[in-house]
Amino acid sequence: MATLHEFLANQKSESLNQLKEFLRIPSVSADQKYKKEVRRAAEWLTGRLNELEVDTKIYETPGHPIVYGEYHVGDEYPTVLFYGHYDVQPPDPLDLWETEPFNPVVKKTDIHPDGAVFARGACDDKGQLFMQVKAVEALINSDLLHCNLKFLYEGEEEVGSENLEKFCIEHTDLLTADVILISDTAILSNDTPTITTGLRGLSYVEVKVTGPKVDLHSGVYGGGVANPINVLAQMIAQMHDDQGRITIPGFYDDVEVVSNEEREAMNKAPFDLEKYKEGIGVQEIWGEEGYTTLERTSIRPTLDVNGIWGGYIGEGAKTVLPSEAQAKISMRLVPNQDPDQITELFVDYFKSIAPDTVTVEVNPHHGGRPAVTPIDSVAYHAASKAMTKAFGKEPIPLRGGGSIPIVAMFKEVLGLDSILMGFGLDSDAIHSPNEHFGLFNFYTGIETIAEFLIQYGKDKQGS
Amino acid sequence: MATLHEFLANQKSESLNQLKEFLRIPSVSADQKYKKEVRRAAEWLTGRLNELEVDTKIYETPGHPIVYGEYHVGDEYPTVLFYGHYDVQPPDPLDLWETEPFNPVVKKTDIHPDGAVFARGACDDKGQLFMQVKAVEALINSDLLHCNLKFLYEGEEEVGSENLEKFCIEHTDLLTADVILISDTAILSNDTPTITTGLRGLSYVEVKVTGPKVDLHSGVYGGGVANPINVLAQMIAQMHDDQGRITIPGFYDDVEVVSNEEREAMNKAPFDLEKYKEGIGVQEIWGEEGYTTLERTSIRPTLDVNGIWGGYIGEGAKTVLPSEAQAKISMRLVPNQDPDQITELFVDYFKSIAPDTVTVEVNPHHGGRPAVTPIDSVAYHAASKAMTKAFGKEPIPLRGGGSIPIVAMFKEVLGLDSILMGFGLDSDAIHSPNEHFGLFNFYTGIETIAEFLIQYGKDKQGS
Repeated sequence: MATLHEFLANQKSESLNQLKEFLRIPSVSADQKYKKEVRRAAEWLTGRLNELEVDTKIYETPGHPIVYGEYHVGDEYPTVLFYGHYDVQPPDPLDLWETEPFNPVVKKTDIHPDGAVFARGACDDKGQLFMQVKAVEALINSDLLHCNLKFLYEGEEEVGSENLEKFCIEHTDLLTADVILISDTAILSNDTPTITTGLRGLSYVEVKVTGPKVDLHSGVYGGGVANPINVLAQMIAQMHDDQGRITIPGFYDDVEVVSNEEREAMNKAPFDLEKYKEGIGVQEIWGEEGYTTLERTSIRPTLDVNGIWGGYIGEGAKTVLPSEAQAKISMRLVPNQDPDQITELFVDYFKSIAPDTVTVEVNPHHGGRPAVTPIDSVAYHAASKAMTKAFGKEPIPLRGGGSIPIVAMFKEVLGLDSILMGFGLDSDAIHSPNEHFGLFNFYTGIETIAEFLIQYGKDKQGS
Repeated sequence: MATLHEFLANQKSESLNQLKEFLRIPSVSADQKYKKEVRRAAEWLTGRLNELEVDTKIYETPGHPIVYGEYHVGDEYPTVLFYGHYDVQPPDPLDLWETEPFNPVVKKTDIHPDGAVFARGACDDKGQLFMQVKAVEALINSDLLHCNLKFLYEGEEEVGSENLEKFCIEHTDLLTADVILISDTAILSNDTPTITTGLRGLSYVEVKVTGPKVDLHSGVYGGGVANPINVLAQMIAQMHDDQGRITIPGFYDDVEVVSNEEREAMNKAPFDLEKYKEGIGVQEIWGEEGYTTLERTSIRPTLDVNGIWGGYIGEGAKTVLPSEAQAKISMRLVPNQDPDQITELFVDYFKSIAPDTVTVEVNPHHGGRPAVTPIDSVAYHAASKAMTKAFGKEPIPLRGGGSIPIVAMFKEVLGLDSILMGFGLDSDAIHSPNEHFGLFNFYTGIETIAEFLIQYGKDKQGS
C-alpha cells in the first residue's frame, strides 16, 4: 500500500482529468434551461462517490437534487459532514471569456505559475468540493481514515439553497455529526494561508420602477413625464450618503460592534492596497468612511446594484421614454443583522422614496444569515495544524466578505459548527468571466483536507 | 376624368393596401442586419413614384440610400419639395406588441373609431410620407396639379440623417424649390387640427462608466470597491436639480426666452391634464417648475435616459459587482441651443462629476438643431386654408416637442422654409410597441396635402 504522500503525488493527473470532466457539465442552477445539466452533475458526482464505496443517494427536491453519501469506519471515530455545491453561476457575459466557460483549459498566470484550470465553477465550487472527494480517496487507499464521513452536496447554492433547509429539518437524524467541513472560501494568498471565521449574510431583491404604461416618444413627452430610468437612478443614488453609509432607516441597528482589539488584529493581516488596486484595475478604492478595505469587505454591511436594465439597449440611438426600469440589488449583512428584517426595511424605504410619478415593485430573492465560527474548538485547531503542515505556515483566522448562508442554518437546524477551510484566491474570478482555480491550490487543498481528517480523528478521540 | 373628391374616395382601399405593402418591409435603419430591407423599402418607394411618371433616382450614400424624384408641370408654377423618411425605429421591445410589428393589421380604437393600421412605421413616417405620394396621384388624375414637385425621401432619419446634409450641400442646384412640405408631425386631436411651427433639437450621447477591470464577486469586494452601476445612478441623479432643471453648467445660456404673450397663447390650446395622465397611465406628471406640460414638452429643453444596462440582467440572482455600466442619454433642445455645443457641455460636466473610482467614456451619436418656422408666409397660409377645408376647422399653430433636425439644416443649406404639416396623434405610439396611424388621419392627410398643393399653386402665382 502506498503512503499518503505517494498516493497524493500519483493521484494528481487523474484528479485533474476528473475535475475537468466535472467542469464540462454546465450545471447553471439559476437558469431553467440547464436543469438537466444540473442533474447530470449530481449523477456524475454520485458516480465518483460510489467508486469509493461511499453509500450514496440522490434526494429529489422541488428544485435541483441533493447528493447525500455516508462512509462508516467505526463507531469509535468522530463524524465529519462534508458540504459543497455542484451548481455554478451563470457564465455571462460570455464575450469576456478568453476560453469557453465549460471547456476547462489549464493556463499559467502570474499568481498561478504552476497553472490554473479555467472554467465556470473551477473554484466555486466544483474544484473545492472535489478536493474533499479526492482527500477521502487518498486516505482510504493509504489506510489512514479514522473519521466517519457524511457528504452533503447541493445543486442550489447559487440560487439561495432554497430546498436545503427543509432537507436538513427533515433529516436531522441522518445528518448527525461532530463538525461540518466546508470548502467554498478563499485564502489570502498562497503564501498566507487563512481560515475563514466569519461570513456576511445576504439580502437580495429585484426592483421595478414603472412610469407610463407604454414606452413613449421622448420628444413628444420628454420633460413632461417622469422617466422611470432617471427616477430609479435617483432612488439608487439615495441609498448611500456622502460617507458611503447606507441610508435605509434602521439598517445599522443590529450591526455587531467589533472591538478595537479585534479590528487592530484584523488589520495586521498582510494587505497591500496598491497591489489590491492594481489587481482589480481601479485608480481609487471606495467605501464607508472610518473603515479600512479589509473591514469594509468583512465586518461592515454593503449595498450593491448587481444588475440594471431599462429602455433601449440595442445598437444605435432610439429616443424612447421607457415605461419601466429594473434592477437587482443585494445587501451583504454582518452578524446580528437578520436578512428578512433587512429585506423588509429595504422594501419600506424603497417605497417611501418613490415619487408619485411612478409605481414601484420589490421582489425579494433568497437571503442568508451572517455567521461567525468559533476558533477555540478541536476542529479549528485540527484545521490549523493541517494547514500548517501542508502550507508550511500557520494560517491566520480571517473574516470573509462573501456569504454562505447555510453556515448559520446548519448551526440553527443541526446544532453544528462549520470549519470554513477553502483554498481559492480572491483573484480567481469566481462569479466572473475567466473563473479559474490554481493547480497548487487544488493539490494542496486535497492534502490539507486529508491532514485535517487525520488530525481531527486523532484529536477528537483524545479529547 | 374623375373629380378630385371622386378620385380620393375611389383611391382609399388601394392606398391602404399599398401602405400595408410598404409597412411589411422592416426598414430598421439603426440595425445593420436590416440593411437590405432598408434598400428594399427605397426600391419599393421608387416603384410607386415611377408609376406616377415621377423621374426617380436612387442616390447611394455611405449609409442607406436617398430616393429622389422630380415631376415638372411648367416653369410658370412654384416648386414644392416633399420630404419624408422611409426608415423606421427598431421594434423592441417585441414582447409588448399585440400584433407583429411588420405585419400591418387594421383595428378600431377609442380614438380611431374608423380603424387604424398597426405596424412599426405606420405613423412615423411611412404612412405620412405615402400621403404625399397619394395626394400627387389624385391631383395628376384629376388634372389639378399646378405645382412642380421634387421628392426627397431618406432612409436615415431614425439614425440622425447622417448623409442627408452632405447630399444637400452637393446638390443645392437640384434641390431649388419654393418651399418644403414635411409630413412627419402630429396634430393635437382629430377635432383640433394643428400645424407644427417649431421643433426641438437633439443631442444624443452614449456613456460608459468603468470600475474594476473585470466583474467582481460582490461578497468579496462589495463595500471596498465603487460599483459602476451605483456610480452611474448617482451621476444620472445629479443631472437634474430639485426643480426639475438640468444641472449642466451653461445648459440654459442660449435657451430662447418665449414672451409671456406667446406662452399665454400656447396655453390656450385645448389640453386636459387628467386625460393626458390617463392616456399614458401615470398618477402624477413631472417637469421643470414654473412651466405647464405644454411648455415643458415644447419650449423647454430636457434630458432623458433612453436606455441603461449593466451587470447581470438574466433570470435569477447573481451577486456580481460589475466592471461597467452604460446608458443612452438624450437632450431635447430648443431654439438657439446648438447641439454640438450642448454635447460638449454634457461631456465636460459628465466627466467632471465622475469620481476617481471610475473612468468614464462619452460617445456622441447624431445631434440636430431646433427649428421655428414662420407663420406669415404664403405657404403657411395655404397650409392653413387646406387644413380648414379638409378638417372643417382652422388649424392652431403649435410648437412640437420632437426633433426633425433636418428642418434647420434645410434652412441653412438650401435657404428654404419648411411647412410641418403632419397628421399623426401623440397617442399613435410612435417609437413604441403597437405604433399605429388612424385611417381617418391617413385619408384626411392625403386630401389636405392635395388641397395645399392646389391652394399654394394658386396663391404663389398670384403673389
